[in-house]
Amino acid sequence: MKIAIVGGSGHYRYVLQELKNHTLLGIAPGIIGEDLTKLKNALTKAEITAPVFDDWKKLVKDADVAVVNTRPDKNAIVSAYCLERGISVFSEKPLAVTMEQLEKLGTAAEKSKGRISAMLGIRYSGWYRTVKAALPQIGDIRLINAQKSYKLGLRPDFYKNKAIFGGMIPWVAIHALDWILDLTGAKVTAIAADTNNGFNSGNGDLEMTALCQLQLEGGILASVSADFFRPAGAPTHDDDRIRVVGTEGILEYMGGKVTLTDQNGVNELPMLESEDVFRLFLEDAGVTEQDSFYVTELALNLREAAE
Amino acid sequence: MKIAIVGGSGHYRYVLQELKNHTLLGIAPGIIGEDLTKLKNALTKAEITAPVFDDWKKLVKDADVAVVNTRPDKNAIVSAYCLERGISVFSEKPLAVTMEQLEKLGTAAEKSKGRISAMLGIRYSGWYRTVKAALPQIGDIRLINAQKSYKLGLRPDFYKNKAIFGGMIPWVAIHALDWILDLTGAKVTAIAADTNNGFNSGNGDLEMTALCQLQLEGGILASVSADFFRPAGAPTHDDDRIRVVGTEGILEYMGGKVTLTDQNGVNELPMLESEDVFRLFLEDAGVTEQDSFYVTELALNLREAAE
Repeated sequence: MKIAIVGGSGHYRYVLQELKNHTLLGIAPGIIGEDLTKLKNALTKAEITAPVFDDWKKLVKDADVAVVNTRPDKNAIVSAYCLERGISVFSEKPLAVTMEQLEKLGTAAEKSKGRISAMLGIRYSGWYRTVKAALPQIGDIRLINAQKSYKLGLRPDFYKNKAIFGGMIPWVAIHALDWILDLTGAKVTAIAADTNNGFNSGNGDLEMTALCQLQLEGGILASVSADFFRPAGAPTHDDDRIRVVGTEGILEYMGGKVTLTDQNGVNELPMLESEDVFRLFLEDAGVTEQDSFYVTELALNLREAAE
Repeated sequence: MKIAIVGGSGHYRYVLQELKNHTLLGIAPGIIGEDLTKLKNALTKAEITAPVFDDWKKLVKDADVAVVNTRPDKNAIVSAYCLERGISVFSEKPLAVTMEQLEKLGTAAEKSKGRISAMLGIRYSGWYRTVKAALPQIGDIRLINAQKSYKLGLRPDFYKNKAIFGGMIPWVAIHALDWILDLTGAKVTAIAADTNNGFNSGNGDLEMTALCQLQLEGGILASVSADFFRPAGAPTHDDDRIRVVGTEGILEYMGGKVTLTDQNGVNELPMLESEDVFRLFLEDAGVTEQDSFYVTELALNLREAAE
């Protein structure tokens, strides 16, 4: 495959391993002045060489696949352009930061020979695969509590402006929303959400906390808690968690372990291997276009509910 | 003190230890036919003897304090009667199961020489005291996630009728609501809630899951998750948890341990001793009347939001 990387502001790391089996046509900033230093360093470290284009439109011209991870408010514009030319898109999540962008992108995707998938790579991590594979052991899912907690660290400037960044729900909580939708296979029937940007260490209007509450088909309830308050001294950058409560047992991921609580007490499950999200995308076996749009729309609706 | 116990359907266990230092005038059902077997057995085991009255009104006549834990929908009626006669009340939570009951009780409490306090005894457990004592180490509280998860087991019939039982939020989630209010010292500024009674093993309209979402003064966010799906094979009856996210650190209680995550990593805190909630009540050093009313009102408002 001939691949182009547009932007270096998101999760380009997802593609590095699989990229070695394909042709990288080049990289380009998605907006003027975008800092590609980290992307360049990552490519050098992975022993991948590629020319740097000034104009991403020239870069994607001959590509089969565009990896789009520029400034969040520009991703949907680049993605729509590519889809309109039949180029498939592996896009940073959310697919878009406004409902208007998302609708235009949806039209482009419908008409396109190419397809688009969001970088919801945690779905293919070992822990998530382990939880999902164990679902038959807990009966019917009735309740899910999911958590995203990150260290704040130093963030690029675009985090400071919600109109550009998109906000904590579409950027961070979206992963947890994706887990909930994927594990239950259910549509959302009611939502509530709230966010707060207090104590954000001078990061403009960056939200530091977010809560989402979902009701899903079949009366399943689900909650998401997200924050940027994980202390700098914590052992890992993130503290992702999920608790899936079923009629026959409870599955949990936390602190690097997946446990099953059922009639046999609490037992740790052997961890499955992770899978390569980009390889799966190229094989059309990854996050579907439908799922990518649905979770983005849900995240944007929750953001609106919070506002 | 001269003490009367009305009903045996709630948390009379809270009073057994301290009761030895006082006079138990007797016990009585709060409604005709209330099963007092468990209460009687508990008293026998604690080597406390007391006459059984048929009529709780005759029992409380000479009491200084009434311990009220009869069928949930009758607690407020007994409590109001006692307060109107200057008798202090140690009441099962919630104080009332309808807003109308709560308002009448409020009027009685205002006019009374006696006082009323809800059995929010978890506040005086070792783990809760440990979390509260460590609050100065985490800066400003920004987010709290609290959990109540119980085994369903065999429940008395009153659980099957929400009009009598009051529902999962006033009965179970109220503890977690109390922790949030007590730890933050903040008033609630916005709420959302949802419950579901699916898969309740033939228990009428008993709710099996509940989610609450709160916004508090100062932009603090808080969530509560409650369920009756803790598997019978789990090591303990309940799986109470709290996660208190501050600007300088995160305090958590889970699985019998309190941990602090801050610039020094994750460390377990030494557990403080529990205190006797009934002794504190008698010394007027327990849950205040104001807190008891506020949390009951909040729980009833959340129940309404869920409906």
